[in-house]
Amino acid sequence: MIARQIVAEALGTALLLISVVGSGIMGESLAGGNTAIALLANAIATGCMLYAIITVLGPISGAHFNPAVTLAFLMRWEITPKLALAYVAAQVAGGILGVWITHLMFDLPLLQLSTTARAGIGQWSAEAVAMFGLLFVIFGGLAARADSVPTLVALYITGAYWFTASTSFANPAVSIARSLTDTFAGILPSHAPGFIVVQLLTTLIAIPLLGWLFGRK
Amino acid sequence: MIARQIVAEALGTALLLISVVGSGIMGESLAGGNTAIALLANAIATGCMLYAIITVLGPISGAHFNPAVTLAFLMRWEITPKLALAYVAAQVAGGILGVWITHLMFDLPLLQLSTTARAGIGQWSAEAVAMFGLLFVIFGGLAARADSVPTLVALYITGAYWFTASTSFANPAVSIARSLTDTFAGILPSHAPGFIVVQLLTTLIAIPLLGWLFGRK
Amino acid sequence: MIARQIVAEALGTALLLISVVGSGIMGESLAGGNTAIALLANAIATGCMLYAIITVLGPISGAHFNPAVTLAFLMRWEITPKLALAYVAAQVAGGILGVWITHLMFDLPLLQLSTTARAGIGQWSAEAVAMFGLLFVIFGGLAARADSVPTLVALYITGAYWFTASTSFANPAVSIARSLTDTFAGILPSHAPGFIVVQLLTTLIAIPLLGWLFGRK
Amino acid sequence: MIARQIVAEALGTALLLISVVGSGIMGESLAGGNTAIALLANAIATGCMLYAIITVLGPISGAHFNPAVTLAFLMRWEITPKLALAYVAAQVAGGILGVWITHLMFDLPLLQLSTTARAGIGQWSAEAVAMFGLLFVIFGGLAARADSVPTLVALYITGAYWFTASTSFANPAVSIARSLTDTFAGILPSHAPGFIVVQLLTTLIAIPLLGWLFGRK
Repeated sequence: MIARQIVAEALGTALLLISVVGSGIMGESLAGGNTAIALLANAIATGCMLYAIITVLGPISGAHFNPAVTLAFLMRWEITPKLALAYVAAQVAGGILGVWITHLMFDLPLLQLSTTARAGIGQWSAEAVAMFGLLFVIFGGLAARADSVPTLVALYITGAYWFTASTSFANPAVSIARSLTDTFAGILPSHAPGFIVVQLLTTLIAIPLLGWLFGRK
Repeated sequence: MIARQIVAEALGTALLLISVVGSGIMGESLAGGNTAIALLANAIATGCMLYAIITVLGPISGAHFNPAVTLAFLMRWEITPKLALAYVAAQVAGGILGVWITHLMFDLPLLQLSTTARAGIGQWSAEAVAMFGLLFVIFGGLAARADSVPTLVALYITGAYWFTASTSFANPAVSIARSLTDTFAGILPSHAPGFIVVQLLTTLIAIPLLGWLFGRK
Repeated sequence: MIARQIVAEALGTALLLISVVGSGIMGESLAGGNTAIALLANAIATGCMLYAIITVLGPISGAHFNPAVTLAFLMRWEITPKLALAYVAAQVAGGILGVWITHLMFDLPLLQLSTTARAGIGQWSAEAVAMFGLLFVIFGGLAARADSVPTLVALYITGAYWFTASTSFANPAVSIARSLTDTFAGILPSHAPGFIVVQLLTTLIAIPLLGWLFGRK
Repeated sequence: MIARQIVAEALGTALLLISVVGSGIMGESLAGGNTAIALLANAIATGCMLYAIITVLGPISGAHFNPAVTLAFLMRWEITPKLALAYVAAQVAGGILGVWITHLMFDLPLLQLSTTARAGIGQWSAEAVAMFGLLFVIFGGLAARADSVPTLVALYITGAYWFTASTSFANPAVSIARSLTDTFAGILPSHAPGFIVVQLLTTLIAIPLLGWLFGRK
């Protein structure tokens, strides 16, 4: 069972990155400079994939695909530290693999480093909002109506591409993987750690607050 | 419990305004003058967030996020006047906070006043239609199939951005908050009261009519 | 009860036309000549409204909003001829009212006639496909999983705006009402009868075929 | 019953091709060179139709509309070889019919051959990803929550238009039919076999892997 859980986390994160990076490449190449349409395609494609991987893999691994979400479940004692570590490793490896598969599909060099700067107060506060909102829909959704979680996460991220200044990474594994592509969705490798720190700090702060709000005993 | 309800109303309205104002800023900045794409992103992002906050916070506060909706529940004796007042205060405060958080994310001055004129017979009749439709989907949805209300409100508002001339504010707290941003989603502070009067008058008239239509005893 | 049914048919059709005509006007005015974006907004807004009015008014009137659909239910002996006639009158009146309310919102002359030609083999065969598909999702949906009908009709029409050459009127009341607006969604009054004939003929032919396919006794 | 199954497979595949080819023609003709908007319309319209045909025809034929999916069910011994063959014939015939009906609607010559090249490592690896993902959502969805399969397939394909370099054909019948239209969605007839080989090989490899992942006994 554990092997299937680990594979599910790696596969789901790989598919997530394929959707994020692939639709960014396609969008940018077709939109002829109109970045808004590229971002719209990026947001819709990512939301579609999130619905799919959470619905399909949820019963197997819980469908985290995100070290910050795994940290949140760890803080709630709903996953063992050992399994959490394995999940995080699978997520990071799966994410990177997803980026490379995408490069293969689009006839691009597999190994790349992003040159897109994403840093500063605006970007970091955007990641804090993005991460808080993601945990809000996951744990609020689980409390309110668990079968709506795939839709909640998919729609939340589709929207958050637009209403956060950072286009909502909200995921350390995604932040690492996206530093390895010099395409629309990339992030400068030296800027990824800033995003990850904000994501993890926000998780540490948000989980007790959300626990109170959603009436967790 | 009451504290959680008040916090839920404030938080939900803050998130709503983040989605409205943030996606407007992002849309306008990327669309390069093609306002239609900016409005499309604005409409989709707002709908996504509405689905999230109504699903997640509905079981806690009823998910009003809107003084006109709170007034409607008051007219139906489904909320006490005292709690209604607290809800409205939380909605207005949360909405303003949401606008300021958005400005922070997009590296804009926090304190702003809109310069976008929105007044006249067309705009006001549009707000009457928008408000009537919103109450129609909320109370019709509750009568027909309560678990569809998050989807109903989300899709209705996504559409109403396009089919009403005012892009559907349909919410006094949102009207106030949007007067405090000089970006895509703004409304001239002196024009906000006109919108609010229409929204409240429409609610006073619509609630008895909808009560009859949906067979309320 | 009958009064509520008639009002529901008129109100629903009015709201449908507001969504079709209003989003067409807004889309065209913002898209700056890029008709594809206008049609995208048009399609999405119409789909959103269809989901709302079918979900909310379905339990009251059955949510036809369409004389061809009422004819189909009559052919299946699921509505009395007298009520069917009242429905059709309410649909036509409601549709026209919806167009006028839309003109009011957008500061346009209330009374207009369209100048958009829509005729010929291509357009008529498109209306036959559009109408067949609509009846297919309604009666197939009722047979397969009745609670999915609002989603089925909403998504089907959103798609059909794009895959039929006529943008899918598929509704005689809508065809009449849209002849009364000289905006994006209009149809030359002298071309509306051609559409209506195709819609009704398609219904006469499709209902027995679909009855067989969906295993109706 | 068998006649209804065969008709359902042919009709569903015809409707699928109408949505793919029709929305491509409409999108390209309206988008004025902005291919991104054409592809967005193409993706949305296809997703809408997939939801409709799978929901409505699922209870009748299982809603394959795809020889690779029929092969997958055959590998799982869930369809007899004889019925599988009839399904494939119906899918291919229905798909071609759908293309011709679309040409009729858009006033184009019925008989065409595509001139759009789609070949090479990138395109083929994209088809492998696309096909794997489609089988992943179908069989994962059936294992996790069967009533979500129409939504899963619809959203997956809407996204896959964007995140795979080939725009996700993922269907041998669709690949054949799309070689017969020289419009937006076309594929050079001599390149269709390459796509089909990849799709079938991917299915042969994916089905045992997915069987393990989804815990099939």
